[in-house]
Amino acid sequence: MDEFELINRYFVRVGKAHGVVTGIGDDGAVLLPDPGRELICVIDTLVEGVHFPSDIHAADLGYRAVAVNLSDIAAMGGRPRWMTLALTLAKSDEVWVADFAKGLHEAAVEHDMSLVGGDLTRGDNTVVTVQITGDVDQGNAIHRSGARVGDTIFVTGTIGDAAAGLERLSAGKPDDYLCSRFLRPAARVSFGQMLVGVASAAIDISDGLLGDLQKLLDASGVGAELDLDSLPLSDALRSAFDAEAQRRFALCGGDDYELCFTAAGDVLPLAGDPRVTAIGRIVAADSIVCRAGGEIVEYADSGYRHFQ
Amino acid sequence: MDEFELINRYFVRVGKAHGVVTGIGDDGAVLLPDPGRELICVIDTLVEGVHFPSDIHAADLGYRAVAVNLSDIAAMGGRPRWMTLALTLAKSDEVWVADFAKGLHEAAVEHDMSLVGGDLTRGDNTVVTVQITGDVDQGNAIHRSGARVGDTIFVTGTIGDAAAGLERLSAGKPDDYLCSRFLRPAARVSFGQMLVGVASAAIDISDGLLGDLQKLLDASGVGAELDLDSLPLSDALRSAFDAEAQRRFALCGGDDYELCFTAAGDVLPLAGDPRVTAIGRIVAADSIVCRAGGEIVEYADSGYRHFQ
Repeated sequence: MDEFELINRYFVRVGKAHGVVTGIGDDGAVLLPDPGRELICVIDTLVEGVHFPSDIHAADLGYRAVAVNLSDIAAMGGRPRWMTLALTLAKSDEVWVADFAKGLHEAAVEHDMSLVGGDLTRGDNTVVTVQITGDVDQGNAIHRSGARVGDTIFVTGTIGDAAAGLERLSAGKPDDYLCSRFLRPAARVSFGQMLVGVASAAIDISDGLLGDLQKLLDASGVGAELDLDSLPLSDALRSAFDAEAQRRFALCGGDDYELCFTAAGDVLPLAGDPRVTAIGRIVAADSIVCRAGGEIVEYADSGYRHFQ
Repeated sequence: MDEFELINRYFVRVGKAHGVVTGIGDDGAVLLPDPGRELICVIDTLVEGVHFPSDIHAADLGYRAVAVNLSDIAAMGGRPRWMTLALTLAKSDEVWVADFAKGLHEAAVEHDMSLVGGDLTRGDNTVVTVQITGDVDQGNAIHRSGARVGDTIFVTGTIGDAAAGLERLSAGKPDDYLCSRFLRPAARVSFGQMLVGVASAAIDISDGLLGDLQKLLDASGVGAELDLDSLPLSDALRSAFDAEAQRRFALCGGDDYELCFTAAGDVLPLAGDPRVTAIGRIVAADSIVCRAGGEIVEYADSGYRHFQ
């Protein structure tokens, strides 16, 4: 089966999606933006052997490739609209492609988004690039650069699960909650939209809390104090790993796709919201100081790097 | 040098581009579309060893990765606006990245377009995905599906040069005009915009004239008669290859990134335009019939396929 047949059979979905004038099958997709909205454009690649193990289930890979991009849209408070896919495969395996497309569409449908175009090519190993165009009311996008001294630092959900799950997957451990957090990350899209006008700055946690928070701090020109005792850890993480490993996963492990954001101290509604945890505050400094049990703790790792 | 430093040094350009609210450096780019315009969204991947030889000059690769996407925008009559880049590299070679970025920006600047975001990752070999968002007045995009019986079929420029150039490159021949047609394809962006309201259908020639024309015919539900004697061939192609090879490159060779389009027979201005050549007409059939010297000639090749 050649790439044109694969695309027609597994990637094209019937029915007209909102704002899609022309979808898959022409030289490009034609899309109609809503008036008064700005576009948010994101692109992220997953490489076999780097971002995911070779034996990952194709449906999980499809889901994950979309979720990591949705997470970037979420971090800006955006609404995902349209997606394009650049998929490079070593061979044409119809079952694999069918499963991959299933996972991809699953993540898209959850967020009322449609695949409008793409490119399917042959290469030595699997490389998946997803690009998403979202939108947001003009002037409302949340940036990394808005954190101010005195703001509280929050994270959504629990952190460290995905990195712990990847370690378990690599060790051949059976699927469990932690693994599912790596394979099927839940992009915080609706929560991100709720943060518009509330958060002063936001970033999604893809490379690890310390590394990603540092990017937010650099963009804002501020520093942070973190209270490590308040890091939100799942019961699954607590029961599967010792305290040192829990903290390492939570601070330096990537792939959680939770949001880390800042808000002025007087934004009270967030304090009681069970979806978020306050983990520190913004200070006038140029780095992150971590405290545990009142003592300062050193952490050198500043997030995942592809190249050193 | 890690990927964040590479991005800041070689991909970020200072200065505000039209419609770019937030460029490189946040979770996503924030873009302001012009009112009354539809978006055109395209994405295309170039894989080392498949789309280009491993020893291609990085600047040529950067240029070409943009040009092949510009060509899709051109085929729809669009104006390119914003570009994102997903670049996978085996190693962090600063000189290579600098050259690649130079070629990429060169192609972008030629078309008044800016790089607004991307993702730089590590992988086993080089994979370049460029995504471009363009725009066009609402309802004005040119589609593959509009060809009607009686329309004349045109191509821009000369065809077959790029495939001939690639063969010469692969054979270690010195750089010349044919090679440059492969390495630095000239996307017909301004010409494509001129075709709005003139062309009934259009497609760019990336996989070969016969294969790409067939896609246009399939989308339009029509057939075609081609006059092979009228194929526009460059002097360089004519002098470097025999007549049979010339015709094979022109019909089955990809990578030209010229436009193939149809227009009603009474669109007289095009008949005298030196940038285009009439090569046949649309007929009520379901395939392409080629004639040379009055005789029907069979061609089986229907364009490049990654997978069979």
